[in-house]
Amino acid sequence: MGYSIKELKELKEFYQNQLLNDTVPFWFPRSLDTEFGGYLLMRDQDGSLIDDDKAVWIQGRAAWLLATLYNTVELKKEWLDGAKLGIDFLNNHCFDTDGQMFFHVTREGKPIRKRRYYFSETFAVTAMSAYAKATGDDSIAFKARLLFEKCIEYSSTPGLLQAKFTTTRPLKGIGVPMIMINTAQQLRENIGDPRCNEWIDKWINEIETDFVKDDIQCVMEQVAPDGSIVDHIDGRTLNPGHAIEGAWFILHEAKYRNNDPRLIALGCKMLDYMWERGWDKEYGGILYFRDVYDKPVQEYWQDMKFWWPHNEAIIATLLAYTLTGDEKYATWHKMVHDYSYEKFLDKENGEWFGYLHRDGSKAQTAKGNLFKGPFHLPRQEWYCLQILKEYLKKA
Amino acid sequence: MGYSIKELKELKEFYQNQLLNDTVPFWFPRSLDTEFGGYLLMRDQDGSLIDDDKAVWIQGRAAWLLATLYNTVELKKEWLDGAKLGIDFLNNHCFDTDGQMFFHVTREGKPIRKRRYYFSETFAVTAMSAYAKATGDDSIAFKARLLFEKCIEYSSTPGLLQAKFTTTRPLKGIGVPMIMINTAQQLRENIGDPRCNEWIDKWINEIETDFVKDDIQCVMEQVAPDGSIVDHIDGRTLNPGHAIEGAWFILHEAKYRNNDPRLIALGCKMLDYMWERGWDKEYGGILYFRDVYDKPVQEYWQDMKFWWPHNEAIIATLLAYTLTGDEKYATWHKMVHDYSYEKFLDKENGEWFGYLHRDGSKAQTAKGNLFKGPFHLPRQEWYCLQILKEYLKKA
Repeated sequence: MGYSIKELKELKEFYQNQLLNDTVPFWFPRSLDTEFGGYLLMRDQDGSLIDDDKAVWIQGRAAWLLATLYNTVELKKEWLDGAKLGIDFLNNHCFDTDGQMFFHVTREGKPIRKRRYYFSETFAVTAMSAYAKATGDDSIAFKARLLFEKCIEYSSTPGLLQAKFTTTRPLKGIGVPMIMINTAQQLRENIGDPRCNEWIDKWINEIETDFVKDDIQCVMEQVAPDGSIVDHIDGRTLNPGHAIEGAWFILHEAKYRNNDPRLIALGCKMLDYMWERGWDKEYGGILYFRDVYDKPVQEYWQDMKFWWPHNEAIIATLLAYTLTGDEKYATWHKMVHDYSYEKFLDKENGEWFGYLHRDGSKAQTAKGNLFKGPFHLPRQEWYCLQILKEYLKKA
Repeated sequence: MGYSIKELKELKEFYQNQLLNDTVPFWFPRSLDTEFGGYLLMRDQDGSLIDDDKAVWIQGRAAWLLATLYNTVELKKEWLDGAKLGIDFLNNHCFDTDGQMFFHVTREGKPIRKRRYYFSETFAVTAMSAYAKATGDDSIAFKARLLFEKCIEYSSTPGLLQAKFTTTRPLKGIGVPMIMINTAQQLRENIGDPRCNEWIDKWINEIETDFVKDDIQCVMEQVAPDGSIVDHIDGRTLNPGHAIEGAWFILHEAKYRNNDPRLIALGCKMLDYMWERGWDKEYGGILYFRDVYDKPVQEYWQDMKFWWPHNEAIIATLLAYTLTGDEKYATWHKMVHDYSYEKFLDKENGEWFGYLHRDGSKAQTAKGNLFKGPFHLPRQEWYCLQILKEYLKKA
């Protein structure tokens, strides 16, 4: 039965209203740290601060959000000024002397922890590229490109970063090609970069060749370097929300390339496989982890419902629907949209709770912590608003 | 109302029966890896193998269990032979060239992961000391003592092991003094060691001085090096089951020292504080994490019910009751015993499930994985059997 134009208009209004009158005002202006720079984002349900530490991923993501709102929604000075606070904090406090970024710093910007990953870097690239677009500042654009080059180096030079595991049974994760696709898309679409298309092709090919398994209708989270399934607990563990996020990065690429049919088919296939694996037929919502052969997962909280897989699934299903018109995607979109705004949305204080039990009851109340902040939810509301605007303009 | 002698006799029978006719037979002999040595312990509810990898902690703990059953329950050759399999595997495959032990190895003993902790080492000390007692093998006793010396070195030399966090805001955990107390107790009581009493005193003093907070009636999980509370998410996070485990290590020491009243008071106080913080008044059972000021905990699964805090609470309450006769501890013991054997015990296949949701429903079915194996449950049943035997003999 699909969505009628009227329904799509209502959805557009809904996302716009949630974004601008609920989600963004939960975080800003109160989270702007005008004393030390950056953002104070670790907040309880009512907005009270539970920790003044700063998670570097989320500092970058929040700066990206504010700059992107400025670039695409309205030229509000407060958003641009807010983005600057984060960009300056990243530049002044979040880089170690070896050029790697930290993961967790104090309010003042003193390092607490550095990790063996470069996701602080990828989120900084997206933030800097959006801010460079907003300001036209070439020096920030240059920094974004340089940092992107560093991420490519990390991603393509085994052994450059310290490894968590030995070389006995190497595994590679879908996280790297996925996040690099999105980073390159942001860089390209904000300030242009001649490297991006070729690299995006490589990463999409890697996902298609090594992670997408048609014989068992599955997108793996980790595989051996040659793409084979590693039949141990780690190798069998699936992350449906993550794969669905990867699916919409590829659908976005399809749209960018004039609705490239091969990429639409690939993204939809990934979504189909992982909706089937991830959607909880008993309680609704997206399960966090599954075992590819339905064995027990090591992570004991595997059946919880986290906010972010729902944001990614809302985007993926709506994007798939607007690209294909397949009614199935409208049905799925409605299922995950209705579940999410019923269960996660805090109707009293705004924004979403992050962590529900399998049955949909609330496991804890934090709106922001080391891993949650103003990102997946506002990005979802913003992105859905963009694709609906475009779609309705054409329709 | 306390427990009557008749009830205590029934409890003794119950633990003995569960240990020998339910828990131990779930694991052995099927987990003995006669081909590669060590144990195959990653098993689903029905005992089927979900992974043939070996977790080094659990290899040591299983060898400790088998040697201890041999030393204290019955001189069964199969237990001694089983213990030898684990001891040989630890010695032949689980040490890196720098003398540190691995955390996770393949079935053949090839390293998968080494961590920045030395708990593989502490569990190897307890296994080797129990095996040395069982066999009278001086070379194993020597190895156990040498490895204990290494653990002391790690615990008392900051910077010797690679740190996870920077020095900006140092934290120390109760895990180190706790586990070292238990390691020293095992070493001392199996093969004797002149270093142990003095070190145990130091670690108990450290816990009493730095982690036990009378003003707020709490045992902290992590504090600053000077014992002050660090008012950030990590520093505020309590682990009631862990603190209750620490409480019974101290009560055990009290018993060993002819019912030392100071140590009885300290152990009971720790149990009292953390029972109050950890017992779930709504659903029963011990909550995994709490925030000292009731703020949201970072770990989203903080309200799950894990098997092992219940094993530790069953021991702690029974030991407190036998040492003090305080009826409160009999009441608590009955509460946690009844909850646990109703909710965790797999009445069909034996042994306990590891992971329940807050409401007591089952979150997943694994009996063994990287962190669960034949340890907390059989240790609880064995230890409760020992203290009840002693108590009933005196009564």
